[in-house]
Amino acid sequence: MTSTGTCNASYYDTGSRTANGESFDPNGLTAAHKELPFNTRVRVTNLANGKSVVVRINDRGPFVSGRCLDLARGAFVTIASVSAGVINARYEVLK
Amino acid sequence: MTSTGTCNASYYDTGSRTANGESFDPNGLTAAHKELPFNTRVRVTNLANGKSVVVRINDRGPFVSGRCLDLARGAFVTIASVSAGVINARYEVLK
Repeated sequence: MTSTGTCNASYYDTGSRTANGESFDPNGLTAAHKELPFNTRVRVTNLANGKSVVVRINDRGPFVSGRCLDLARGAFVTIASVSAGVINARYEVLK
Repeated sequence: MTSTGTCNASYYDTGSRTANGESFDPNGLTAAHKELPFNTRVRVTNLANGKSVVVRINDRGPFVSGRCLDLARGAFVTIASVSAGVINARYEVLK
C-alpha cells in the first residue's frame, strides 16, 4: 500500500535517542513521523526543486501543526538548504 | 566539489562485513564504490524512471567492468525492480 501526499517538512539535529531506542545520528538518512511504523521507508521530494531523498522512520514527531515530517539534518540538506527551515514536500511511503 | 556522471549500477545483498568494517545491512541505504571515501553521500538516479535515492558509501566494489556502483538491495529497490538487475544511473556526489 503506497500512501502519498504533501505536507510541510522540517529538520532537527538535537536529541540523543530516537523513539525506537536508537542513538540519534543528526547526519542519518532518517526522519520522525507521528504514526508510520518504525523502519518504514519514505521518499521525500522537495516540491521547490524536485530533489528527493529516501529516509527511514526511526522517531516520533514533529509535534507542530501543519508539519508531517521532521528529517534529520543530514537527510534534509540533500534536498534543501538548512536556511530554508521548512519546505513543502511530497511524501511517498515505499514500504 | 560535486562530481557527477553516468554509469551502470547494480545491487548486492550478500556478505556480512563491509570494507569499512560495518556489518552489512542488505536493507541499508548504502553502496559500494571503488574509491570514493567512506561515508560520502551519493545521489543515484535511475535514468529510466527518474527515481533517485541518496546512499552512503561504506563498501568497496563493484569489481565488474562498466559498473561504478553496487547498491545494497534495500537502496536499489527504491529506484528499480530487482529484476532489472543492472540500471543506467546518474550519480552525483553530495559531500
